[in-house]
Amino acid sequence: MIPRLYIEADLEVGVASPLTQAQAHYLKNVLRRSVGDRMCLFNGRDGEFDAEIIELKKQRCVAAVKAQIRIQDAEADLTLCFAPVKRGPLEHIIQKATEIGVARFMPIVTDRTVAPKLNIERLQAIALEAAEQCGRLSVPSVSEPIKLAALISDWPAGRRLIFCDEAGDDENAEWGGRAGRAAPALEVLNSIDSNTETWTVITGPEGGFTLAERKLLRDTEFVMPVTLGPRILRADTAALAALVLLQAACGDWRRR
Amino acid sequence: MIPRLYIEADLEVGVASPLTQAQAHYLKNVLRRSVGDRMCLFNGRDGEFDAEIIELKKQRCVAAVKAQIRIQDAEADLTLCFAPVKRGPLEHIIQKATEIGVARFMPIVTDRTVAPKLNIERLQAIALEAAEQCGRLSVPSVSEPIKLAALISDWPAGRRLIFCDEAGDDENAEWGGRAGRAAPALEVLNSIDSNTETWTVITGPEGGFTLAERKLLRDTEFVMPVTLGPRILRADTAALAALVLLQAACGDWRRR
Repeated sequence: MIPRLYIEADLEVGVASPLTQAQAHYLKNVLRRSVGDRMCLFNGRDGEFDAEIIELKKQRCVAAVKAQIRIQDAEADLTLCFAPVKRGPLEHIIQKATEIGVARFMPIVTDRTVAPKLNIERLQAIALEAAEQCGRLSVPSVSEPIKLAALISDWPAGRRLIFCDEAGDDENAEWGGRAGRAAPALEVLNSIDSNTETWTVITGPEGGFTLAERKLLRDTEFVMPVTLGPRILRADTAALAALVLLQAACGDWRRR
Repeated sequence: MIPRLYIEADLEVGVASPLTQAQAHYLKNVLRRSVGDRMCLFNGRDGEFDAEIIELKKQRCVAAVKAQIRIQDAEADLTLCFAPVKRGPLEHIIQKATEIGVARFMPIVTDRTVAPKLNIERLQAIALEAAEQCGRLSVPSVSEPIKLAALISDWPAGRRLIFCDEAGDDENAEWGGRAGRAAPALEVLNSIDSNTETWTVITGPEGGFTLAERKLLRDTEFVMPVTLGPRILRADTAALAALVLLQAACGDWRRR
């Protein structure tokens, strides 16, 4: 196994790169590597490089950058807005959604959100580790929580919002604006111009969005409400299912 | 919250149903219910019923079955064959795949499977709890592990096998039989007669299938190799992604 690590510094062939103390510890004490061993480095800007350990001490590691092995390619502009859930499913969302290809995590405060205090730094570390392991050339960002109403009122033009509307099968719901039932996610995604490249997926808390929140979302022009099958999915399952369908129907999972 | 419980006995309006000791404990001590409280009962055969607690002691609960609220509908004949992974991701596969709609779990022993001993009873309990929570009318079964070669040689006629071929992007691979690269999962699924109703999805262990196993799978007529995007997915992410795509493209997630 060749270690694959994210660093902040610029990467250029022939330039030595210092790693962090934590990375030095990981290479030396966890992976038991030594001077002369190889690794891969990426920084989210310059592609991926083959590198070699030229100095390795308890708290210090320096790598010689040998050759570029991948160029930086464009990645999907895909945001996941999610109502924070309990720690296990929350960390699970971050790890899996990073593998699936999310670029940005935006925690959303909803009426039913039960999230005392989010440890953004820890979530960012989970995203980083998942990015290193899944072969991405970038690390998704994790922002501070914002309120649902603020998200909608400051919405950037041209961006689609896929709304996982668990209660979308409620035939008797009466809406102020756009009517009735949400359609199956894949049906909705297949109907969209597939060259759209800026996407947001929003999923609710355990217990779902309130009726007022659903109305706010469904009466908004850029929102596309979708359903995810006849069973009740947990919040983390719903988020990952919607992202998988979006990437498969409209994103980079279509590449051969 | 109205509790929703699976029982083994037949369900019929007017007939009293005894619950298990564990269910009596759960209702009395965890949910703090008492005589007169309502619940829903299902058994995988007779649909779902509204019921009322008529006796509740420490180790004994009896419910009066009041009215049928859902009839038993046909569910997809969808099997997940998976190489067992570590406990966390393994339990995660069972829980999420039950929500997504799997009918049968078949653990598979592969060359790289690292699975000392599977606790089938515990996996079955996780499937049962997920079925109760997600509103299914059935509980998926979990079978004893079998070897990959035995799975393939005893394959039932007419059944499709969707093979998540992580290494499917290897352009230089040379195969004895059917050539080259796997195609994106959704592209493959969209090409299939959507009235096919018996499916199996197979996913590999951490580290993937060996080259010999990949050849065995890809040279077999009923196997459809698919890819799941350009990043390396963990074994549990891959299993759930493939199931989501199958249900959305060919299964009951298409229902409005």
